[in-house]
Amino acid sequence: MIGRLNHVAIAVPDIEAAAAIYRDGFGATVSAPRGLPEHGVTVVFVDLPNTRVELMQPLGEASPIAKFLERNPGGGLHHLCYEVEDILAARDRLAAAGARVLGSGEPRIGAHGKPVLFLHPKDFAGTLVELEEA
Amino acid sequence: MIGRLNHVAIAVPDIEAAAAIYRDGFGATVSAPRGLPEHGVTVVFVDLPNTRVELMQPLGEASPIAKFLERNPGGGLHHLCYEVEDILAARDRLAAAGARVLGSGEPRIGAHGKPVLFLHPKDFAGTLVELEEA
Repeated sequence: MIGRLNHVAIAVPDIEAAAAIYRDGFGATVSAPRGLPEHGVTVVFVDLPNTRVELMQPLGEASPIAKFLERNPGGGLHHLCYEVEDILAARDRLAAAGARVLGSGEPRIGAHGKPVLFLHPKDFAGTLVELEEA
Repeated sequence: MIGRLNHVAIAVPDIEAAAAIYRDGFGATVSAPRGLPEHGVTVVFVDLPNTRVELMQPLGEASPIAKFLERNPGGGLHHLCYEVEDILAARDRLAAAGARVLGSGEPRIGAHGKPVLFLHPKDFAGTLVELEEA
């Protein structure tokens, strides 16, 4: 049921500095910063041969990553996003296995224009997990 | 220069419980637990179509992940491992860009039998980064 690792998200206090590490230190292809006001973040995509790293900096007053950066001022690994074929079937199977879905439990449209859900980190060994319908 | 994301490592307090989440909740293929006393961890590999999640539980008295779990008793995202073709060239380029290499600065043989190095999280937006020669 679980599909590709779509991305690893890293919350950063300074997205230009974080992008420069990947561009200059690693020689990676990094996108220009893109503001996603409806998601409260500015993102930079770092392309790897098999997946993507997403650097996220808070955008606006009520950014969902603001509290994480208060606890981790230097930044840190924020979440993993797994692809699933059928997000409602995946949600129901995970819920039956005891996992809690965050928010209303209904998918919303994520940063890539596809339905997403977030799962409670306490049910995934401390890891915030995003599901994205592939 | 940067290659594939070889794996995402998650430190967990109870590897059987963490493996069960991926096996039963996600329908993922998970390996049997494997003790790596020379690395101070027991690992379970979770195979995804494009990369691997490695669940790690402390093994022995001086596990390198013991302190992380003291700070994060429920577990959490521990490090990312990127593949590089030439680990010494990668190290030197990263050092020239200002990144600090942990330990002696010389590669050692990692859990997959290949040369690895770890980079200081403060130089990677709070993310502990492992380099593995592909």
